Amino acid sequence: MAYAAAQASIGDSEFDRDTTVTARAGEPGVYDAELSAGWTIITAVNGGYLLALVGRALSAALPHPDPFTVSAHYLTSSEPGPAVIRTEVVRVGRTLSTGQASLFQYDADGNEIERIRVVASYGDLAALPDDVRTTALPPAIPAYEDCLGPEAGPAAPIPGSNAIVDRLRLRLDPATAGWALGAPSGKGEMRAWFELADGRDADPLSLLLAVDALPPTCFDLGLMGWSPTVELTAHVRHRPAPGPLRIAITTRNLAGGFLEEDAEVWDSADRLVAQSRQLARAPRG
Amino acid sequence: MAYAAAQASIGDSEFDRDTTVTARAGEPGVYDAELSAGWTIITAVNGGYLLALVGRALSAALPHPDPFTVSAHYLTSSEPGPAVIRTEVVRVGRTLSTGQASLFQYDADGNEIERIRVVASYGDLAALPDDVRTTALPPAIPAYEDCLGPEAGPAAPIPGSNAIVDRLRLRLDPATAGWALGAPSGKGEMRAWFELADGRDADPLSLLLAVDALPPTCFDLGLMGWSPTVELTAHVRHRPAPGPLRIAITTRNLAGGFLEEDAEVWDSADRLVAQSRQLARAPRG
Repeated sequence: MAYAAAQASIGDSEFDRDTTVTARAGEPGVYDAELSAGWTIITAVNGGYLLALVGRALSAALPHPDPFTVSAHYLTSSEPGPAVIRTEVVRVGRTLSTGQASLFQYDADGNEIERIRVVASYGDLAALPDDVRTTALPPAIPAYEDCLGPEAGPAAPIPGSNAIVDRLRLRLDPATAGWALGAPSGKGEMRAWFELADGRDADPLSLLLAVDALPPTCFDLGLMGWSPTVELTAHVRHRPAPGPLRIAITTRNLAGGFLEEDAEVWDSADRLVAQSRQLARAPRG
Repeated sequence: MAYAAAQASIGDSEFDRDTTVTARAGEPGVYDAELSAGWTIITAVNGGYLLALVGRALSAALPHPDPFTVSAHYLTSSEPGPAVIRTEVVRVGRTLSTGQASLFQYDADGNEIERIRVVASYGDLAALPDDVRTTALPPAIPAYEDCLGPEAGPAAPIPGSNAIVDRLRLRLDPATAGWALGAPSGKGEMRAWFELADGRDADPLSLLLAVDALPPTCFDLGLMGWSPTVELTAHVRHRPAPGPLRIAITTRNLAGGFLEEDAEVWDSADRLVAQSRQLARAPRG
């Protein structure tokens, strides 16, 4: 197997450093952060990276450690640079607690501009019973070695000047990579093996990045262009086992200038560890 | 066809009366409401009805009329009686505006208790282009006449003392009604024809009710019990045509004491008018 050797560990990795939040002295629930230029697509900061960053602030603010369901509405485009996350504890229960967070950046006059607003319910994945009655099956994706990584050249997963490409090790299913050669399948599907480039294993917070890290399904429909997320909700259902993830995203309903996009994330132990759905604007092209 | 004759119209119906919100004088963005006992399951108010009620308050508060994507976190169980909805305009854009709303009820001392918190992006469905490139197909459900309504007796859609049964005209696909006879299919599916009992046609707000109005998919897995929603996000994608709706709900991932539930709502013109996903607790049984 050509899996990456782990060069980084949970807590000491690019992802962890770039999602660091720092509690602001004297202002409970307020966290400063720096949006890294390392997770951008063209000039915009990736929405999954933002979600993970806000998710880390909520982990700090709430008594439960793990995101169970996280709903984010994307208001304005984020840019690399300073940000502040303001959290609120909405309700604390025995098995779940609910919080809200907004991430703001600053305009030229130093005024705060809200980028995303999140409401989330957190729990403790380690405390859940082991029952599994899922009928879902892992995505039909070729072996890791038979999928296409950046070394495949013209079929590289994400074209253009995208810093995030260097932070991820995406290996696309050739059946869903035709768009990179001008031959999209038309089905609205995207499947890939997913790792962080420095070999850090997945954890619940990095799953919030993973659900929005593949090229958009509209590429597979032949619509090459910007497809900004309006809203994304992710469910984290199990702590991921070490090793690469498999991610499948699909869209079934492109209509009226919008499309939904569903993601499933599977771990190396064949567990469905996360599901997400987003509503995005369709590219104008 | 045995479709209901329209005895009520949009704006003048049980649903409209029971989702009325009244702007509180001198408090912009604050709306009083009365949760009707007509939309309860056992003693709890149906989550879709609550969502529609909050959705109506947001329609009043925001410059755009229609819910596009609505994310709700359910905090505590609602009961029939007085409620107040506090809204906030988060961002106003050209094609979309985003708002937040919380619905509160009152404890014995008159203190407000938050029931659900909602963040939603609204737009104008009538302003969307007519392009449809959906690959989704309407649910495979038998003809209206061949599905099971309350008159089917022991196979009635919802057992027990549920006021909401009288407000809806649900006709269940016999293939997903076996649980009512002690023989669930085990697939985690539920399909039904759906109308309001007084014949009022569907509109974007009533779709917020429709996505959470069927018996839960866990019944079809043989788990008969209370399955409270933690979070539900609904996308409204098109203004529904007159006539009965077809609703299909599925669960694919019951694990760790929780399950996701996806709903699709199709109108009489074969348009996928709404999609939703929720995370719910699995019944303890």
